[in-house]
Amino acid sequence: MNNEQKKVGKQTVKLQNPPKIICTTSIVGPKEGDGPLKDYFDIILRDDTNGKESFEKAESSMMYTAIKETIKKAKLEEKDIDYLLAGDLLNQLASSSFAARDMNIPFIGLYGACSTMAESLGLASLLMDGGYAKYVIAATSSHFSSAERQFRFPLEYGAQRSEVAQWTVTGAGSILLSNEGDNPYVTYVTTGIVKDYGIKDASNMGAAMAPAAVDTIYRHFQDTGRTPDDYDIIATGDLGLVGKEITQKLLLEYGYDIKDVYIDCGAVIYDNERQKTNSGASGCGCSAVVTCGYLYKKMLKGEIGKLLLVSTGALMSTTTSLQGETIPGIAHAVAIEYS
Amino acid sequence: MNNEQKKVGKQTVKLQNPPKIICTTSIVGPKEGDGPLKDYFDIILRDDTNGKESFEKAESSMMYTAIKETIKKAKLEEKDIDYLLAGDLLNQLASSSFAARDMNIPFIGLYGACSTMAESLGLASLLMDGGYAKYVIAATSSHFSSAERQFRFPLEYGAQRSEVAQWTVTGAGSILLSNEGDNPYVTYVTTGIVKDYGIKDASNMGAAMAPAAVDTIYRHFQDTGRTPDDYDIIATGDLGLVGKEITQKLLLEYGYDIKDVYIDCGAVIYDNERQKTNSGASGCGCSAVVTCGYLYKKMLKGEIGKLLLVSTGALMSTTTSLQGETIPGIAHAVAIEYS
Repeated sequence: MNNEQKKVGKQTVKLQNPPKIICTTSIVGPKEGDGPLKDYFDIILRDDTNGKESFEKAESSMMYTAIKETIKKAKLEEKDIDYLLAGDLLNQLASSSFAARDMNIPFIGLYGACSTMAESLGLASLLMDGGYAKYVIAATSSHFSSAERQFRFPLEYGAQRSEVAQWTVTGAGSILLSNEGDNPYVTYVTTGIVKDYGIKDASNMGAAMAPAAVDTIYRHFQDTGRTPDDYDIIATGDLGLVGKEITQKLLLEYGYDIKDVYIDCGAVIYDNERQKTNSGASGCGCSAVVTCGYLYKKMLKGEIGKLLLVSTGALMSTTTSLQGETIPGIAHAVAIEYS
Repeated sequence: MNNEQKKVGKQTVKLQNPPKIICTTSIVGPKEGDGPLKDYFDIILRDDTNGKESFEKAESSMMYTAIKETIKKAKLEEKDIDYLLAGDLLNQLASSSFAARDMNIPFIGLYGACSTMAESLGLASLLMDGGYAKYVIAATSSHFSSAERQFRFPLEYGAQRSEVAQWTVTGAGSILLSNEGDNPYVTYVTTGIVKDYGIKDASNMGAAMAPAAVDTIYRHFQDTGRTPDDYDIIATGDLGLVGKEITQKLLLEYGYDIKDVYIDCGAVIYDNERQKTNSGASGCGCSAVVTCGYLYKKMLKGEIGKLLLVSTGALMSTTTSLQGETIPGIAHAVAIEYS
């Protein structure tokens, strides 16, 4: 019997059987492959269409490759994987659904906008911890060109970008969990609550998502009794430069100074000045490839011992924005440790 | 320690601590409230805008009301609910995200198209069974007018409907799980695999989803050793008349005759001739309100003892259809029992 509550505090689960991240795959486009983290990515595409006839198909093929590569690296087959938890930004999860179509794996589709890496990894960890699976994959993707034309303007318009705009990462990440081996493991999962502080500017998503990031990080500390000192890195997903500054300031007001350990995946993936990415990066793929590439590999090398990943999502649609709605945000957090 | 595998067969989990459905709420539009199941719905709107200024806001308000009403009926408060698992058909889950925005509940967004009721109820059941929660809500919604203009044509065009077209249900359903009381309980969760048999006609979703329904029902029987005789009702989500016939025939070829216990929620919610709904109903809301209304209430009365709910989703987007893609389908199954 296991019906004792495993939650600590209101929003956090402490895993009794921490599942291990046995391998990851990161695949990125040429722009990401020209940025400061290029040496950490597994696959860098030379052409962001990946040889496909549309950006949407390119995105889906990246997710497919990331998942297949992960299974191959672990010397497993599709039939060994109990669940695939995946999501993306495209309407009706087109990237994930069409990647899943070509795989014989039970599929759970998720939508958390750019919070999807932590959402899928968190749920996957609960399914592992609960004994429902031997192997679970969590995956997500985004693509600059499919996102621009779905959420903003077709690239052909040549619309001017706002100073606070972020650049959607072209990339996909895939994480495989199991109970085997000596690998980084997931210890806590903090599920976020939707927060909306009234931001309406869809070019300023960092500001829209910051309150959700603050809330989830604050709840994580409160629920677990941990403080910023317990982490080597706290990494938000894609707040960019503007959202990162807001998050850091607001958390200080709540009594937590995260400055010394804080990075934002969206602020580190590009050389924002040289690559003209304004306020940094965004997209589900952002925290996915930074986690699967940079952060995971730093953990394996012993350079990061305790990581709190806080992927952040802006939950608006073009319809809600046209109807005058503000932008709700959400953030999910997953603690990953290796010692 | 609970890291023994709880899966039976490839795709099914047998719950060790079957969570109970302690209450449900169904809310529908005027057309559904004029159909054969009208006496089973909790709330019937007189106006399908629900007093809101857009169909999307109306849909979101229906989901909000369904969830709030469920919490109220159970004499609980928002703070008692550990997780809300919800999804809908609108781009970026606008209905669910904006309903969740006004609630202080950890939110897990799901996308499974019209399979969302079984997807959310299945995952919610695993979270309960695993001991991660005391109370979880699974919810979903759809709205005829928001779906038509997003997926097909704006209503103002007056486009002619295909013979095999289905009518998207205007409705929302919400299910509350806990370990308390004497109530119908969830015993098995079978997670589906994406199936695509090459159907391209977005007006014929029943045919596109039928192979997924067949696969999941077949796997459920194989995994559990059960047969159609073990159920009083097997209810697919929204295959409509065309998809229902295909499903029944294909399962017979696989050796399972479900005819005597088989209903399709999409085939029973409207009086298809009088209400001019052609091949029946579709939409996430379809299996949601038929389950939360009709089926659950029949279980409480002792008229259904064992139910297999198999919600079915068509995973295309308008973009994938315009790009010439076929329609992938998925079906998730949840066994609910009461004796």
